[in-house]
Amino acid sequence: MDLYSYFRSSASYRVRIALALKKLDWNYIPIHLLKNEQLRAPYSDLSSAKLVPLLRDGDVLLSQSLAIIEYLEETHPTPPLLPPTAAERARVRALALGIACEIHPLDNLRVLRYLARELGVSEEAKDRWYRHWVESGLEIVEHKLAGSHATGRYCHGYAPTLADCVLVPQIVNAQRYNCRLDHVPTVMRVFEACMQHDAFISTQPSACPDANT
Amino acid sequence: MDLYSYFRSSASYRVRIALALKKLDWNYIPIHLLKNEQLRAPYSDLSSAKLVPLLRDGDVLLSQSLAIIEYLEETHPTPPLLPPTAAERARVRALALGIACEIHPLDNLRVLRYLARELGVSEEAKDRWYRHWVESGLEIVEHKLAGSHATGRYCHGYAPTLADCVLVPQIVNAQRYNCRLDHVPTVMRVFEACMQHDAFISTQPSACPDANT
Repeated sequence: MDLYSYFRSSASYRVRIALALKKLDWNYIPIHLLKNEQLRAPYSDLSSAKLVPLLRDGDVLLSQSLAIIEYLEETHPTPPLLPPTAAERARVRALALGIACEIHPLDNLRVLRYLARELGVSEEAKDRWYRHWVESGLEIVEHKLAGSHATGRYCHGYAPTLADCVLVPQIVNAQRYNCRLDHVPTVMRVFEACMQHDAFISTQPSACPDANT
Repeated sequence: MDLYSYFRSSASYRVRIALALKKLDWNYIPIHLLKNEQLRAPYSDLSSAKLVPLLRDGDVLLSQSLAIIEYLEETHPTPPLLPPTAAERARVRALALGIACEIHPLDNLRVLRYLARELGVSEEAKDRWYRHWVESGLEIVEHKLAGSHATGRYCHGYAPTLADCVLVPQIVNAQRYNCRLDHVPTVMRVFEACMQHDAFISTQPSACPDANT
């Protein structure tokens, strides 16, 4: 399998973690977002959305990180990244979507560019925007994690799930942008647990082939 | 089952469509977003994210529209809202996420409020922001639909799927905000097909018990 990725893309990092958790073989193909490689051919011919990640599995070309992880779950079910019952799976998916739909989309590169270029928002106000959505969004995740007996060492129980694949990249980004994190102790406890797990360590931005390029 | 919904919430409309497609019995519990009922008890005690929809199924309380629909798919598999193969399922989920993660989050009420109140963005610039993300996001959906033989009467084949549940509410919103739609003919063809199907008609905003309240 080939993964088109950028080291700092948190959506790419989600898929890298899932691939590592499932111990799959894959090639890393870097697409440099700050150099706008996603906007030009040949990549733009592959990705109509001009976003990373993309995963190529034989003839199949997959987009959208959560759809890719669900695909990996269905094609390589062991170890599972979703728990066994429908209600538990819904909890894990809701945790993942609470980050992927409520926090991340507001803070990605094209949105920050629009704020600055089209709306003339100052650097300071743009940073405030970034921190607002991260900090308030994580507060909701904290509430869900701290308020449930289903939370264990990881977001759900004692093995990493889809929710951890999405949580960890968001926290790495939050740290990079100096967001407040002391108000989300359960989130940070889970994050620290993940960052002792090789699948999360070996795929983190600083460990990517294109790190700091 | 009880669905906490607001007639104009497109995330709520997604779940209403799925419930109707699966011909399930459910009660409509209105939560008035413009009156901020989602921010106050008793609803805010149920929803830590202070968002609609929520679905209560017996003891289980479910959040995040896509997680709710996946739950319905697992607990009530007929008729299916996801196709049979992993690759097809990934396509349908990616179409749904391409709207749910790339378009909708930028245009929901709390984001538009932040733009106006915190960033002092003018009404005109706010409308331009709204239309920008809808029109550019739908262009990507158009590209995916028009470029694939898998597209049929609906987003995927000849029966409605999760992708249609997410597409239709986005188009209804786009029409309400006078977004340009003539550049996405395949999207609109699918939309028109859906709007001839009772599950989409009977659950549309104007048909909800709280319509125009």
